[in-house]
Amino acid sequence: MTTKEIEKLLNEVKKGTSSVGEALEVLKSFPYTDLGFARIDHHREIRTGYPEIIYCAGKTIEQVREIFRLMISKGSNVMGTRATPDMYSAVKKISPKAKYFSEARIISVQKKKPVIPDTKIAVITAGTSDIPVAEEAAITAELLGNKVIRIYDAGVAGIHRLVDKLPEIRSCRVIIVIAGMEGALASVVGGLVDIPVIAVPTSVGYGANFGGISALLAMLTSCSSGVTVVNIDNGFGAGFSASMINRMK
Amino acid sequence: MTTKEIEKLLNEVKKGTSSVGEALEVLKSFPYTDLGFARIDHHREIRTGYPEIIYCAGKTIEQVREIFRLMISKGSNVMGTRATPDMYSAVKKISPKAKYFSEARIISVQKKKPVIPDTKIAVITAGTSDIPVAEEAAITAELLGNKVIRIYDAGVAGIHRLVDKLPEIRSCRVIIVIAGMEGALASVVGGLVDIPVIAVPTSVGYGANFGGISALLAMLTSCSSGVTVVNIDNGFGAGFSASMINRMK
Amino acid sequence: MTTKEIEKLLNEVKKGTSSVGEALEVLKSFPYTDLGFARIDHHREIRTGYPEIIYCAGKTIEQVREIFRLMISKGSNVMGTRATPDMYSAVKKISPKAKYFSEARIISVQKKKPVIPDTKIAVITAGTSDIPVAEEAAITAELLGNKVIRIYDAGVAGIHRLVDKLPEIRSCRVIIVIAGMEGALASVVGGLVDIPVIAVPTSVGYGANFGGISALLAMLTSCSSGVTVVNIDNGFGAGFSASMINRMK
Amino acid sequence: MTTKEIEKLLNEVKKGTSSVGEALEVLKSFPYTDLGFARIDHHREIRTGYPEIIYCAGKTIEQVREIFRLMISKGSNVMGTRATPDMYSAVKKISPKAKYFSEARIISVQKKKPVIPDTKIAVITAGTSDIPVAEEAAITAELLGNKVIRIYDAGVAGIHRLVDKLPEIRSCRVIIVIAGMEGALASVVGGLVDIPVIAVPTSVGYGANFGGISALLAMLTSCSSGVTVVNIDNGFGAGFSASMINRMK
Amino acid sequence: MTTKEIEKLLNEVKKGTSSVGEALEVLKSFPYTDLGFARIDHHREIRTGYPEIIYCAGKTIEQVREIFRLMISKGSNVMGTRATPDMYSAVKKISPKAKYFSEARIISVQKKKPVIPDTKIAVITAGTSDIPVAEEAAITAELLGNKVIRIYDAGVAGIHRLVDKLPEIRSCRVIIVIAGMEGALASVVGGLVDIPVIAVPTSVGYGANFGGISALLAMLTSCSSGVTVVNIDNGFGAGFSASMINRMK
Amino acid sequence: MTTKEIEKLLNEVKKGTSSVGEALEVLKSFPYTDLGFARIDHHREIRTGYPEIIYCAGKTIEQVREIFRLMISKGSNVMGTRATPDMYSAVKKISPKAKYFSEARIISVQKKKPVIPDTKIAVITAGTSDIPVAEEAAITAELLGNKVIRIYDAGVAGIHRLVDKLPEIRSCRVIIVIAGMEGALASVVGGLVDIPVIAVPTSVGYGANFGGISALLAMLTSCSSGVTVVNIDNGFGAGFSASMINRMK
Amino acid sequence: MTTKEIEKLLNEVKKGTSSVGEALEVLKSFPYTDLGFARIDHHREIRTGYPEIIYCAGKTIEQVREIFRLMISKGSNVMGTRATPDMYSAVKKISPKAKYFSEARIISVQKKKPVIPDTKIAVITAGTSDIPVAEEAAITAELLGNKVIRIYDAGVAGIHRLVDKLPEIRSCRVIIVIAGMEGALASVVGGLVDIPVIAVPTSVGYGANFGGISALLAMLTSCSSGVTVVNIDNGFGAGFSASMINRMK
Amino acid sequence: MTTKEIEKLLNEVKKGTSSVGEALEVLKSFPYTDLGFARIDHHREIRTGYPEIIYCAGKTIEQVREIFRLMISKGSNVMGTRATPDMYSAVKKISPKAKYFSEARIISVQKKKPVIPDTKIAVITAGTSDIPVAEEAAITAELLGNKVIRIYDAGVAGIHRLVDKLPEIRSCRVIIVIAGMEGALASVVGGLVDIPVIAVPTSVGYGANFGGISALLAMLTSCSSGVTVVNIDNGFGAGFSASMINRMK
Repeated sequence: MTTKEIEKLLNEVKKGTSSVGEALEVLKSFPYTDLGFARIDHHREIRTGYPEIIYCAGKTIEQVREIFRLMISKGSNVMGTRATPDMYSAVKKISPKAKYFSEARIISVQKKKPVIPDTKIAVITAGTSDIPVAEEAAITAELLGNKVIRIYDAGVAGIHRLVDKLPEIRSCRVIIVIAGMEGALASVVGGLVDIPVIAVPTSVGYGANFGGISALLAMLTSCSSGVTVVNIDNGFGAGFSASMINRMK
Repeated sequence: MTTKEIEKLLNEVKKGTSSVGEALEVLKSFPYTDLGFARIDHHREIRTGYPEIIYCAGKTIEQVREIFRLMISKGSNVMGTRATPDMYSAVKKISPKAKYFSEARIISVQKKKPVIPDTKIAVITAGTSDIPVAEEAAITAELLGNKVIRIYDAGVAGIHRLVDKLPEIRSCRVIIVIAGMEGALASVVGGLVDIPVIAVPTSVGYGANFGGISALLAMLTSCSSGVTVVNIDNGFGAGFSASMINRMK
Repeated sequence: MTTKEIEKLLNEVKKGTSSVGEALEVLKSFPYTDLGFARIDHHREIRTGYPEIIYCAGKTIEQVREIFRLMISKGSNVMGTRATPDMYSAVKKISPKAKYFSEARIISVQKKKPVIPDTKIAVITAGTSDIPVAEEAAITAELLGNKVIRIYDAGVAGIHRLVDKLPEIRSCRVIIVIAGMEGALASVVGGLVDIPVIAVPTSVGYGANFGGISALLAMLTSCSSGVTVVNIDNGFGAGFSASMINRMK
Repeated sequence: MTTKEIEKLLNEVKKGTSSVGEALEVLKSFPYTDLGFARIDHHREIRTGYPEIIYCAGKTIEQVREIFRLMISKGSNVMGTRATPDMYSAVKKISPKAKYFSEARIISVQKKKPVIPDTKIAVITAGTSDIPVAEEAAITAELLGNKVIRIYDAGVAGIHRLVDKLPEIRSCRVIIVIAGMEGALASVVGGLVDIPVIAVPTSVGYGANFGGISALLAMLTSCSSGVTVVNIDNGFGAGFSASMINRMK
Repeated sequence: MTTKEIEKLLNEVKKGTSSVGEALEVLKSFPYTDLGFARIDHHREIRTGYPEIIYCAGKTIEQVREIFRLMISKGSNVMGTRATPDMYSAVKKISPKAKYFSEARIISVQKKKPVIPDTKIAVITAGTSDIPVAEEAAITAELLGNKVIRIYDAGVAGIHRLVDKLPEIRSCRVIIVIAGMEGALASVVGGLVDIPVIAVPTSVGYGANFGGISALLAMLTSCSSGVTVVNIDNGFGAGFSASMINRMK
Repeated sequence: MTTKEIEKLLNEVKKGTSSVGEALEVLKSFPYTDLGFARIDHHREIRTGYPEIIYCAGKTIEQVREIFRLMISKGSNVMGTRATPDMYSAVKKISPKAKYFSEARIISVQKKKPVIPDTKIAVITAGTSDIPVAEEAAITAELLGNKVIRIYDAGVAGIHRLVDKLPEIRSCRVIIVIAGMEGALASVVGGLVDIPVIAVPTSVGYGANFGGISALLAMLTSCSSGVTVVNIDNGFGAGFSASMINRMK
Repeated sequence: MTTKEIEKLLNEVKKGTSSVGEALEVLKSFPYTDLGFARIDHHREIRTGYPEIIYCAGKTIEQVREIFRLMISKGSNVMGTRATPDMYSAVKKISPKAKYFSEARIISVQKKKPVIPDTKIAVITAGTSDIPVAEEAAITAELLGNKVIRIYDAGVAGIHRLVDKLPEIRSCRVIIVIAGMEGALASVVGGLVDIPVIAVPTSVGYGANFGGISALLAMLTSCSSGVTVVNIDNGFGAGFSASMINRMK
Repeated sequence: MTTKEIEKLLNEVKKGTSSVGEALEVLKSFPYTDLGFARIDHHREIRTGYPEIIYCAGKTIEQVREIFRLMISKGSNVMGTRATPDMYSAVKKISPKAKYFSEARIISVQKKKPVIPDTKIAVITAGTSDIPVAEEAAITAELLGNKVIRIYDAGVAGIHRLVDKLPEIRSCRVIIVIAGMEGALASVVGGLVDIPVIAVPTSVGYGANFGGISALLAMLTSCSSGVTVVNIDNGFGAGFSASMINRMK
């Protein structure tokens, strides 16, 4: 609720075009719907520029379906991450337009196509096993209205596979680097380009990998400038932030 | 065993109204029953104001049932936490009054209604996935004789959903804040009220969440005063402590 | 800013007793003073019932002095924790009423005596080395208007030293238990009373003590109900929360 | 191989009662049998006073059976820890004398009864869920030739249940204390007796319990003297060490 | 070295305008200077758009001075982070234009003013103690050619201090949020804006703060989308990444 | 791509035996094949002396099969680690020469026998449960063209089982020591020989073993010189490094 | 307070040889002296067989001196661990019999010589740097009335230095093994003897040693039976427990 | 003590050329000298091919000097690591040939020049701050008789600085890679060569670097084969192992 909106409302009250009761309602009722188990934030699309996105993990199938139902009824584009096939089946029943990206584990119901800028986001993985996280990032970015280039399995153990793709990578506006194990790829890419790099550690690996902690720490302590980091396996967060930057005017 | 009680007993011995043997029995036998695998503490209700509450995890179905049987036979209200549906079935067979709160995973057998004060406890969660822990807290508080207000899915990513409920929250005597991920909700609530806040970190989240450690650490290092913390996912502990404070005269 | 206050303000605008500009000012300017390096919150006393308390660690002597100067000029009681003797000297120069509690590392400037309820707070330590943290808790509670009982060096290695004090401890409304090493005292006290226990782990100990982590974990996993925990060495936090509960009507 | 034995052998060589070849054989062939996957140490019974004990976890059923077969054929008492029922069935087929202690997960084949001293070992648990670890300790101690007193569910949340048993506990020569959660029981027992205490942390608990780390750290940092610690859930190790001490002359 | 540049060079060799030897020299000698202890990368300004920036910690005063001397001689703007006053004195002697930002611990020698876009970067801290890290971020961004708005001491314990500044914050193109303790500010800001947030955990706090780990974990697990994270106390990294995004066309 | 190769190519361009286009192709296309999900590095055999080895964990059966298919078609020896029986079945269908080493979890397709030097590698385990990791190391070394001596179950609890094998161990050129629990065997072996020791911690053990961390730390802090360490359970890495050293001329 | 003592007291009350008031006094006043900052436990000598031992770290010089003064006045042998030379000077002034063992950092005032059994305790260290911890253990054991054999610098990197001493080691009743780095010595000694081993990890080492954690974990996960562990650097604890076992009848 | 040596000795006893007493002396006295605080292993040079090397940290100046004195008197080359200048002064007084390498913190007294093979060891660092550790590795290798190539400050943030040196690096027999922060250099080098790589993590960095743990974990989980790892900052260990491999025939 910005200062401007408060001022406008106060002026309406003064002029009598709004009653005190009406204004009070507006001021006190933020636009969300209370489902009991969830409080859907209809205001977020206006406030943050993106509709609310549902984190499905930890929710029951019924909860996911009801949140989708409500948001579809408001005319929003809806997107759910970490969704299981069963959740998708339930959503599909209430909305035939629902799509499921199984590798990315994302359900989407898209009513209005976003405007897509010409600039691109690169999604690079170190290995084949990092692809599910990469797809979460790539699909997220595409659904939010971005062109995405995928470069998979370009880890530092065979660095020429990366060097070969450098011109293409350098043509992008943001780069997402996804790597497990020692996560060195983020530093190497960061040292070769002057483009913001969002690094995603993955839980790929074993032993002293500790479910992604090794890659996470490596990325946080990267000797290359321009690298920022999101949570382990958080493809969605990387895709979302990359979209923010790529769609910047 | 207080000083007063020792004094009284000694006086009885002196007067001859108790024999040495009798007094010795009283002094050495505290009132518990030994089931072999468990030693039920009948004295706790007098000593701590609350009957013993059974932590069912790690016990066999038979052990849970036998502890319930013994305590019911003593006329106590009985409550078991972290109970499975199978444990409930076994208890139900020996006590038709048994109830099961499945989301909270609590079995209760309530013989005498507790007196319920007018003041209230607020139970607030950051997300939908935190609800099972919240229900453990809320049901615990209700069974111990408290009015509870539930406010679920009010996390800081959409802070107006919390602000809207502030008057209601401020009308309570204790607040339980339940959050996973980064656990920021405890600090935000703590900064907005002058009421004791009991924070419960949950294991909700993934990656650098580390099964609730991130939320736990965040709550322990909260910059808001008046926040104390219980163990990860320990809804029972929060409900119990909140009840202690709320029922204080 | 409650619903009531918004309603009143809107009515004044309607009636013309407040202009739109005036109302806007009120709505947008919360009562704090911006010192550049710090933004002093004058509203907190009204909002949370306690004046802002200065955490001095990490601040320069000049910053501490200027924050004290500003707050004294507003007529508030002022209190600074983790303060060095040098900070105290600087504050003493601008306010002759300033006092320093050296063991507790607290500076206070008290203009108005708080009303002190008859109920008491017990502050218990396991060892002699825990006393500085205990004093931080005790002085905090006293400055906020509470009677405090100090029971120091009553650790479980000689548990009769605790048992002896039980009647006195049971006469209190809240208990603060302060222990380093294995932190067992919190569980033992929690099992003997039906009063809320706030446990403070201290960094006292060595080796597998890990700067207080062992005591912290022990207190969080306490088998006794009614125990909540604050950060390692956080005597202030315990004293503040205990005061909230003790001064509850 | 002690100095004495070398001396004796050298004398025999000198006298001609042993040939150089024979002596060499003795010196170079320590008495073990190589099964390919395991090298059974027949010398251990002489060297350490106890026959080799088989840690079954991580071995296949076939490996466990073959090790038992070999050791039985040598006339030793045999004992296997962390054994599954399937392992027991396989051993039972080759040795009808085999017994299975299911709660302790121990298989034993006992050919010769050990001499049992009059002194006793106390095995005390904090809770009911600690019993499987306690049984591993108790059965181990009994198989190695010791009298054991079991005191289960005597945690510090109801400390009188422990106090009541103190005379019995004090009559023992060694005490094993088994506790999960915050592990406070070890410190409390250690403070009440002048007998060696072997503390076993268990993985019982949840959240900040971290699979037994909290109890482990608490026991290592115990403020009571005379407490030593073994690995998490290591009932066998505690029983073995306790037996060593109890059987000491 | 892009495909285009290789093509051009090969064409020159073919045409005879470059000899094989010359081409070989170009291809094998990347433009850096070897100081023995350091290999200064003159190519970086072209490759990444920014001149090399010296991380002074862990270097001797002599090493820092010689790197500065070399880079100044090449006509670059030079900047050194984590610099001590002694390092500054040494640099000042060889370059009178050298400046020292003591709170940010940055030495700069600026020969050519960067073009500064109209868009702005917001640097927000939770507390006063976070200011040194914030200044490192702000000065870095300013030296790299950005306008910076500083909002210090706006932590969630008094959230109205932040709300009041929201219009100003929303007018920026990137936001840097700097917080120690529980790091909740990043989530709260992230939930209120639709602008990329770069979060910097600081080592401010004590106890379960663990030198900034608590804030780091909280920021990584933030429930607000659009938040990326850099290393603990890494003001420079945040300023550098923010500059990359802000100066994007 | 070495300096020499660049020089030769440039000379060919100059002489006209290569066109600019041809040279460009060579320079920019490193010899790998892009399968979409994987980028197979055909150059590695030349560059590192070993063909690419497939880490199968985290890949789908289809991905593993297609990578095998491609590499077999190029005439390489192919080897896949951490492979499941199902992966083997799929590979077997496209290549009847495929073999599966089930304990080592390795699939191999060997077209050309490597030359095998006379020197040997010793693979020593502390216990029976360490054998799967040992087999991964031993099979890897054998497939890469080395003679291997296996000495299993020679842990320090019965150190004579090791001493007995010392002459055989000392006859090797490299030693791989594999141990879980406390990992002491690496230090003991390292102290008895003057041969490089590669230590592999295993996740064998429980409790304070922490999935192999205890053994890993012990090996890293070994008091014996000449010991280097690989990741927990990384038999492949140890076998590969040992092969490099053993095959050194 | 044993059952027997209660019985005797009650009988006296009955007979009239004790008044109720007198008995009450005895029952409620355990024999300790409250110094305000410390509560000296005079009962411990009777209860645990050893007088209270002062842990001096974290206490002020004045506190240490006053505790010594009080305990000396009661006629006890007094011993203080982790004592600085300054503490010793202060104690020396009030008691000319005070002695300081500087390497062990122990102050002792011994009034009555303990009876010393013929059996011995071996104290073995891995390296020279472990000697201060070893001396703390050895002096503790000697002051408590034990014969001690010291074998220093016998680490596994040169295992024959240990083997040579085996007959002497085997002649002892308890063994204390003290090692930093990887702590392997405890397992090796444990595998060679049938005597209880108390392992003390030390903070000696660097890097992945983590202040003694590596040695601690190695000792807890030791593959040798009969090894129990005390806290990092806890020479006192080891000496105390060893004395308990050695002096056992 | 090999089988052969025992055989020979036994034959001498048989023939009478050795008496039983003499043989016993040889068998029981391994060649070390007991200094009380240290047991110098004269046998190591024969057993492991290298004389004992003194780890000076944690020893007193006197202890270091006496160990040097003894070993010099035996005619060995002597080398001490982690030595302070004060230790050097003390050694210099007893041996004018002593040299001090201050950056490497090594004291050496070299009586006989080792034979130096033609092959070389490369020592590569990521940054300037890693040089002290690199010098420890390089000087160790040189003193043990190896040619060393130093390539410092070649980290992945400017990877062309490494690529340029590849031919030189590829000409070596072993490579030591030394890096702090994210340690990516080890993986990158490992992917470019077919030579054994010994990786040394350093404590260089801050924040989520955790004193070298991030680099350590990254190196352990390296996606490049042929990389083994030593302890954090353990330049000596890397130099020693590299020497073993380089000097291999």
